[in-house]
Amino acid sequence: MKTREKIVFASLELFNEKGERNVSTNHIAAHLGISPGNLYYHYRNKIDIIYEIFLQYQSLVDGYMEAPSKQFLTVEDQFLFLEAVFEGLWEFRFLHRDLEHYLESDPRLQKDYQCFTQRCLDNISRIIGKLEDSSVLLPMSHQLRRSFALNTWIIITGWMSYLKMTAGCEGQRISKDRLRQGIYQVIHLEMPYLTPEALQRTLRLQESFKPILQ
Amino acid sequence: MKTREKIVFASLELFNEKGERNVSTNHIAAHLGISPGNLYYHYRNKIDIIYEIFLQYQSLVDGYMEAPSKQFLTVEDQFLFLEAVFEGLWEFRFLHRDLEHYLESDPRLQKDYQCFTQRCLDNISRIIGKLEDSSVLLPMSHQLRRSFALNTWIIITGWMSYLKMTAGCEGQRISKDRLRQGIYQVIHLEMPYLTPEALQRTLRLQESFKPILQ
Repeated sequence: MKTREKIVFASLELFNEKGERNVSTNHIAAHLGISPGNLYYHYRNKIDIIYEIFLQYQSLVDGYMEAPSKQFLTVEDQFLFLEAVFEGLWEFRFLHRDLEHYLESDPRLQKDYQCFTQRCLDNISRIIGKLEDSSVLLPMSHQLRRSFALNTWIIITGWMSYLKMTAGCEGQRISKDRLRQGIYQVIHLEMPYLTPEALQRTLRLQESFKPILQ
Repeated sequence: MKTREKIVFASLELFNEKGERNVSTNHIAAHLGISPGNLYYHYRNKIDIIYEIFLQYQSLVDGYMEAPSKQFLTVEDQFLFLEAVFEGLWEFRFLHRDLEHYLESDPRLQKDYQCFTQRCLDNISRIIGKLEDSSVLLPMSHQLRRSFALNTWIIITGWMSYLKMTAGCEGQRISKDRLRQGIYQVIHLEMPYLTPEALQRTLRLQESFKPILQ
């Protein structure tokens, strides 16, 4: 691994573990056993590292969002897809914890994130269309599909926020299991649009992500 | 109006207009023509003022969330209710722009917000139940109603975030109209659960909140 890659890898690990605000570029350099000067040679500052991490996240998501090459999708494919989405949220969790703040600090990131969101919305619409073609979802109008895709996006991206704001006492960590329960809420959105054939299998698979609700 | 109330009122106005980060307690004092010392006599710091503003927001929301006293609700009642919710989001918009940051800065606020969220979820569930009793929505199971309430909450609270993250160039303001388009997305959630009698009226009323989607 090149030093540049090592810096990004170690930063992601440290940011996720300790919180980005608690990790300075000096910490990162010390963790890697390199000099701060060497680190600055590769990245001018922390926001540059964060931007690089975002690019990696973006390429991960773009990768699995490009609707799977299979012509038809099954209920199981859809769950695998959502598991990949939430795995990505987890692997890059520090990024989502403070995303709004990073967007404000870096116009590049803000611009890229805007295009990224638009691309994700297009891809979600496309996947929904494919699920209709595969008789998992009932056919819907273009407008309904777009609204559905937008709500899916807001639930996926808002779930972490919801957990953070209700996680209670400071320092209480959001666990991977708790995060993955967002899948239950995403599936809830599509419930009324499932074909009779897909409904029972979806209900069975959804059950394992059930959040603890009072 | 007492000085204490004047400070809160002016702060809310200034925070909404200029952004809370750009408004110091000195600005607030100057705006009111009082000395900084007089302001500090009432509020120790800015987060104390923000907390007071949150309490006002909370009491506003609790007020209209207590399911309307009418025994039965109409489609129109529901839209009036959502308009009140989004009017509140607009009136207190600075609070929602940086809520996560404020929750981290003030354990009181974090604790209160957690209870507030729980109360809102309970109230949304209760209103959904009332809409079922009023033949606006089809009857649903307790679990379905809870998931539905949670998704409604995430869409309402996540809509501002979505707008912020996709608003584009820095400084571009989120307009009241753009914010109110969140109502379209909330109504989208309930679309499949509407009774045949309620569907047409809902579609007609929903149309005026349609967001611009590509």
